[in-house]
Amino acid sequence: MGYPDTFHGFAVDGPKTWNQFKKTELKPKPFESHDIDVQIDACGVCGSDVHSVTGGWGDFKGPLCVGHEVVGRAVRVGDHVKGISVGDRVGVGAQVQSCLECDMCKSKNENYCPKMVDTYNAQYADGSWAHGGFASHIRAHEYFTFRIPDKLESKVAAPLLCAGITTYSPLVRAGVGPGKRVGVLGIGGLGHLGIQFANALGAETYALTTSEDKVADVKKMGAKDGIVTTKDGWADQWTNKFDFVLCCSDMTHRYDLATLLTLLKPMGDFHMVGLPDNALPQLTAGTFAGNAPKLTGSHIGNHQEMDAMLALCAEKGLGPWVETLSVGEAGCKEAIERVRENKVRYRFTLVDFEKAFKDERKD
Amino acid sequence: MGYPDTFHGFAVDGPKTWNQFKKTELKPKPFESHDIDVQIDACGVCGSDVHSVTGGWGDFKGPLCVGHEVVGRAVRVGDHVKGISVGDRVGVGAQVQSCLECDMCKSKNENYCPKMVDTYNAQYADGSWAHGGFASHIRAHEYFTFRIPDKLESKVAAPLLCAGITTYSPLVRAGVGPGKRVGVLGIGGLGHLGIQFANALGAETYALTTSEDKVADVKKMGAKDGIVTTKDGWADQWTNKFDFVLCCSDMTHRYDLATLLTLLKPMGDFHMVGLPDNALPQLTAGTFAGNAPKLTGSHIGNHQEMDAMLALCAEKGLGPWVETLSVGEAGCKEAIERVRENKVRYRFTLVDFEKAFKDERKD
Repeated sequence: MGYPDTFHGFAVDGPKTWNQFKKTELKPKPFESHDIDVQIDACGVCGSDVHSVTGGWGDFKGPLCVGHEVVGRAVRVGDHVKGISVGDRVGVGAQVQSCLECDMCKSKNENYCPKMVDTYNAQYADGSWAHGGFASHIRAHEYFTFRIPDKLESKVAAPLLCAGITTYSPLVRAGVGPGKRVGVLGIGGLGHLGIQFANALGAETYALTTSEDKVADVKKMGAKDGIVTTKDGWADQWTNKFDFVLCCSDMTHRYDLATLLTLLKPMGDFHMVGLPDNALPQLTAGTFAGNAPKLTGSHIGNHQEMDAMLALCAEKGLGPWVETLSVGEAGCKEAIERVRENKVRYRFTLVDFEKAFKDERKD
Repeated sequence: MGYPDTFHGFAVDGPKTWNQFKKTELKPKPFESHDIDVQIDACGVCGSDVHSVTGGWGDFKGPLCVGHEVVGRAVRVGDHVKGISVGDRVGVGAQVQSCLECDMCKSKNENYCPKMVDTYNAQYADGSWAHGGFASHIRAHEYFTFRIPDKLESKVAAPLLCAGITTYSPLVRAGVGPGKRVGVLGIGGLGHLGIQFANALGAETYALTTSEDKVADVKKMGAKDGIVTTKDGWADQWTNKFDFVLCCSDMTHRYDLATLLTLLKPMGDFHMVGLPDNALPQLTAGTFAGNAPKLTGSHIGNHQEMDAMLALCAEKGLGPWVETLSVGEAGCKEAIERVRENKVRYRFTLVDFEKAFKDERKD
């Protein structure tokens, strides 16, 4: 078998062999009239991929092909698809379907639809499995497939499909803009985009980092300064100074969350987009009475925010700082291992899909 | 000694004798030009009083005279006081001073001023102690002393000074009004006011309660219905249905908080105003990614909100459902014990101050 009946991807068998990727035949969902098939040219590597393959977010039975920051060419387009044609350069993020009919979907919250289908490790209503972007192709509903602006290189655009929307959406939903002071905590794949977006939206932006050697970088990303959070008493001068803190860290369970909440002005958000495997530190209701912070989080963003974020990046020349690796058994292994160890500055994009999948493609 | 050099109040010595109130001489802060002395006629009994005398919020050394829902007559007014005259009926809530100069105070968040002084168990900058309202008199800064509308009886007005503002402020700050669905969780001294306010502001209001026998009452308070939270699967039909949940419960540490957060629409607040002694259940960041709820809380409210809340109550005939007890060693004991055991429907106001303090007053 082969495309269009099956795709091929680099998959792992289970959490115990989380870093052993093997080229595997993958059965996609049946193609329907709103679906688009994308021949993949680039795929970002997200912390979610690590949490998934290691079983940190839950056990699974393989083959699991991760990757949800996908850019490629539309090679097949369903009869009812509007606005995307074969040959268009498009992207797919961390969601491939929702019902588009419920209260969530109708209120532009399709990213919280109870019937949403994640891009991988998720099942469609008919029992088919969704497969991610470390692969030759991906199949997604048109509402979750996005045109990529010409100005954005594929390797740069790819991480925007998850890391980009994940950091952009909460900032715009919170009304971040001129006159607001924003902190971005945890400067990795998510955080280095959060800084760029908060700054581009007009906020006075600070990076909060445990890595003093990232301070020069965060200023280049648009931060007014980097606040190093390992020095004793670092938080004292920042009490009640932030309108919004975007927590991009994967280590929030190890932080003094109660102190971090004191950074906020009353009714300011401490907004988590990093999702550690472990539970958060325990808090008291009294912590919230102290300065009325809001502890919250979110999951990617909606269709309109994705389009706006991609347009903003194209217009202002924003985007991830990317290291590339060739997709393949070795490249996937290195990427996942280094993301897990926080050894990337600041995002991996897998490339060279035309080499790895030359038999499966029609280039 | 006696008034104005000293007040008298019913005080406890320490957490071990938390229900043993003794009439005690209390030294107030030095009288300054913005201060007002109030001869007390009524004082509500708040959950905070219980948490304080029992040491649940921290150890203390007595004498501790609690009570921060105070209504009485202004009997002395500082030279710089504007708008309140001797003889006026006034109220004092859970705060008696702030700096009125910092960013918090200037942004109408004086209830979060770092230099705020609570009404009792709190020290002024000069070392003086603040004493609460189970007493003959109270001394407070004019900014924290409020005129009571004529239409409100003193015994009804008293609980509004803390329970009222505590539940009103978060509702108005969150923009609760027509088109919003609000849940009020925990129907006691706070919650029964929260229902009335949410309904008066125009929201479709539901009570969430473990006590099926309160359902008839909550409908009289303005709730569309009471949702009994002890039935298996009760939450299923309410997933993502609320714009705002006001958690007035003192038992949040025992609840399935993760499930409660699913009641909210994306970006809806789970707003805690009840402050249990114990820490909240541990949560994961993933809980917040599920439907983007905001876990938050607050501490009383600001000056403008207090005036607006008192005016709303006078205009619409809202207010606490009050049981009265005579202030005194027996009355304070009974009140504190029964609030601790949740045996009051729905708020106690201590009255008969003219009998208990006949030697200290100038009636």
